Amino acid sequence: MVAITPARNIKLTIAYDGTAYHGFQRQNNALSIQEILETKLQKIFGHPIKINGAARTDAGVHAYGQVINLHTTGKIPTQNIMRATLGVLPDDIVITEAQEMPADFHARRKAIAKEYLYRIYHNPIPNPFNLKYAWHIKKPMSIQAMQEAAQTLVGTHDYASFKALGSSAKTSVRTIHTIDIQKTGDFIDMRITGNGFLYHMVRNIMGTLVPIGCGNRPSSDMINILAAKSRHAAGPTAPAHGLYLVKVDYR
Amino acid sequence: MVAITPARNIKLTIAYDGTAYHGFQRQNNALSIQEILETKLQKIFGHPIKINGAARTDAGVHAYGQVINLHTTGKIPTQNIMRATLGVLPDDIVITEAQEMPADFHARRKAIAKEYLYRIYHNPIPNPFNLKYAWHIKKPMSIQAMQEAAQTLVGTHDYASFKALGSSAKTSVRTIHTIDIQKTGDFIDMRITGNGFLYHMVRNIMGTLVPIGCGNRPSSDMINILAAKSRHAAGPTAPAHGLYLVKVDYR
Repeated sequence: MVAITPARNIKLTIAYDGTAYHGFQRQNNALSIQEILETKLQKIFGHPIKINGAARTDAGVHAYGQVINLHTTGKIPTQNIMRATLGVLPDDIVITEAQEMPADFHARRKAIAKEYLYRIYHNPIPNPFNLKYAWHIKKPMSIQAMQEAAQTLVGTHDYASFKALGSSAKTSVRTIHTIDIQKTGDFIDMRITGNGFLYHMVRNIMGTLVPIGCGNRPSSDMINILAAKSRHAAGPTAPAHGLYLVKVDYR
Repeated sequence: MVAITPARNIKLTIAYDGTAYHGFQRQNNALSIQEILETKLQKIFGHPIKINGAARTDAGVHAYGQVINLHTTGKIPTQNIMRATLGVLPDDIVITEAQEMPADFHARRKAIAKEYLYRIYHNPIPNPFNLKYAWHIKKPMSIQAMQEAAQTLVGTHDYASFKALGSSAKTSVRTIHTIDIQKTGDFIDMRITGNGFLYHMVRNIMGTLVPIGCGNRPSSDMINILAAKSRHAAGPTAPAHGLYLVKVDYR
């Protein structure tokens, strides 16, 4: 009789600069973060790896705290994983935490909340250091108007107006727990937390808040935009490179 | 008789991400920031351009406030230069200010002081967003020890210990006005101002302060390192990508 080693279920937290990749999810003919992780982690665990990611970030979107899980029969102690991956992963993808979880943990299915950051660089002159890390807005903007409009979105609502056309989500009802907009120096940061987000939802919210901040529409419009449940009612999709997946929460 | 238009002397302040370039100064077989500026500014001014740069930053070194001057018979109003250059320069080189100066202004010869920033990312785990913008140090460091050692260097001294071997400077006597070291979050920033800096001087000072911060040598060693007037007495050269030319001062 051969003893069967039960597979361990490993949770990894990952930071990445999304600039060089065609998004998180594996796809044909374009390099994804998932493909890099599955290919390189095989060297650490000693067998082919299949990962589950908490969120499918788009091309150019960044992450401080993406979460994945994977099952392994590999022998590497959990506390050595972070260090071992430094040698095999490219510099722009970093494992920041490794943890052994119960067998039923699943990075996407067990997530109960996520936090995203959307960053604007707000200055009449471009900054060469933020080209890939913030949306550059030159015009004067009212943070207060943006904050007022954003508060309309907090709660449990049908966010169909902010769902990418062609998205296959079964329902567009979600709960936004908090939206916080702060200006610090030349950066305007929107932090948004919720139980889940539709495809392009955060970028579409920001793309609607910016014309409000610039005074092109009043902040009171937001209630009508939400009620319309139509993508055409909201503003354009903000650029991918201002968006960061900050954190995924589990019970 | 043809009226001769006297050439205007234009001062430009420039921010750049040095990552993609082989330093500021023009050279054969490698792309420099000077070559980009001279080639692209020709389109704005309508004739070949020769620029004088205040400082020769190395490959990978960044700038918030490099200064150049150039003489032009071009007709573009000074207040339109910034905007015009946005269309012709690459995104990682930005003109932030344009000013018409007296005929005898010279960006390098008339500079009376410069400020540099050297940035360390201080965390056991690498940050994918700072790879090209800070020196990553994982070990614990004493900011106080670094500050104490740095104060030894303030004043007028012979900085031969911090001068790159092979530098052709006539004298290695310079004046450092201030050195300020601050930790903010995970960043340790050294701001240094002086009347001029030898080749690699700021990077060699930081390369000496880090082993002191890590406790490998006492901060009291700095007085001996300075007195030795020998490059071999000081520490290694810190990486280029943590260094920023912040500002150049004129009378």
